[in-house]
Amino acid sequence: MIQKITLIGAGNLATCLGKSLKKNGFDILQVYSRTKESAKTLAKNLNTKYTFNTEDLDLSSDIIVISIKDDAIGGMLKKIKNKNLKIVHTSGSVPMKILENNSSCCGVFYPVMTFSKNRDIDFSEIPLCLEADSDEFLSELKEMAGRISSQVLEINSKERKILHMAAVFANNFVNHFYDISGNILKESGLSFDILKPLIRETTSKIMEIHPHDAQTGPARRCDKIVINRHLKLLKNNPEQEKIYKFVTDSIISSYKKTNDTPGRKTKKN
Amino acid sequence: MIQKITLIGAGNLATCLGKSLKKNGFDILQVYSRTKESAKTLAKNLNTKYTFNTEDLDLSSDIIVISIKDDAIGGMLKKIKNKNLKIVHTSGSVPMKILENNSSCCGVFYPVMTFSKNRDIDFSEIPLCLEADSDEFLSELKEMAGRISSQVLEINSKERKILHMAAVFANNFVNHFYDISGNILKESGLSFDILKPLIRETTSKIMEIHPHDAQTGPARRCDKIVINRHLKLLKNNPEQEKIYKFVTDSIISSYKKTNDTPGRKTKKN
Repeated sequence: MIQKITLIGAGNLATCLGKSLKKNGFDILQVYSRTKESAKTLAKNLNTKYTFNTEDLDLSSDIIVISIKDDAIGGMLKKIKNKNLKIVHTSGSVPMKILENNSSCCGVFYPVMTFSKNRDIDFSEIPLCLEADSDEFLSELKEMAGRISSQVLEINSKERKILHMAAVFANNFVNHFYDISGNILKESGLSFDILKPLIRETTSKIMEIHPHDAQTGPARRCDKIVINRHLKLLKNNPEQEKIYKFVTDSIISSYKKTNDTPGRKTKKN
Repeated sequence: MIQKITLIGAGNLATCLGKSLKKNGFDILQVYSRTKESAKTLAKNLNTKYTFNTEDLDLSSDIIVISIKDDAIGGMLKKIKNKNLKIVHTSGSVPMKILENNSSCCGVFYPVMTFSKNRDIDFSEIPLCLEADSDEFLSELKEMAGRISSQVLEINSKERKILHMAAVFANNFVNHFYDISGNILKESGLSFDILKPLIRETTSKIMEIHPHDAQTGPARRCDKIVINRHLKLLKNNPEQEKIYKFVTDSIISSYKKTNDTPGRKTKKN
């Protein structure tokens, strides 16, 4: 059973994961970050030790959890001299095999979530996507994951890459559109708050209805009059205009493909 | 005081608005739709009469609420022969002035929301954006709106157009990205459900943190390795690839503008 953890990383994900592991009874032996201040802050938060020197890493734990930027994982592995450890990383897009020659057991522990350091996240419903190089280690990871979440999934490296990319659409791109809508309102002295009930409903709706069936609005209706009115409003902001046009075309074509674009003549009032 | 309502339209918005008005004690005298079936269905739902013939419109109500497609409003007004009525429309993008020569009092009653016929919506927190051609009629509309929502706003035609366009970004475009992410998962045999906790958090987060500050992910970090990995995954789907590239570039440039792109060298683990 995994109980003692060395946590490498002190960024958004590492911070939230560390807090959740601690809350659920795991022992975080040590936090490492290459930045002293980050390591110290998270260690204080988790009431544990820290280091910013890879030579001082505490390798006596049951597992090393590497939760750092994707392109820093390879370099970090080179600095862990003991190759007889259980190691996981938490990245959505890095294959498990990066760990294979650097550990006795390796795996991936990928939470499908967006994290911010100062935002407490309830891990209990976050899908934790696991992969391991042996059935035995997979069982151990499942036990570990099951202590912090009820959503534990087995996902291989290829599936995880796809999932991570889909999450970029559903989170980063969506968030960018919230940002744009906020900017549009701000330029006219209107508050972003006006859109919040709509945004809440947009999300609630797709919890029950597939987004393809939930779509409404001018693009869905092929309402060229409204679309052109909006494009005219955006003519002083070529970038927003381009985005509006681009996504509108994409919506229209996605309903053409499924053969269910509502024709004007058949549209009911 | 407005009490008796003739409701013109039986689409998504008209249906939800009609239900809410009835629930809050208004008398819906009659429902009109050019489609008999739609008129009948909504009238049954509201326990009232219906017509699909403009000559049979019941004009004895206190107000005519026109809730039909934008480009059908002009034609409908021509068919209402009595020009001595109080009329509002519910459109986000049609100026109030379309009603001016066709009514004694006119105004706009625009709820900032996405509606589906079969989805019950609680109107109590929906922002209702009002405009009227006189202070007196505005007061009447405020009283009417205040009976169904606590969020009553005065918004002029120009602001309303902007608001409606911003809502397209925050709702339709966002929903389209949920749809794309669902398609990406489906193609790999993965369930859209895996993304639902992330989607919930994406929305919860921006209720407290401005979306510009809430952004995470490869574009936000200028993480070209992950971005290129994703683009490679999408190479068999040129449309998704184009969208990924386009929105990623837009995110990167939006942080360049505010001078806060995290440089790789300064990024903490």
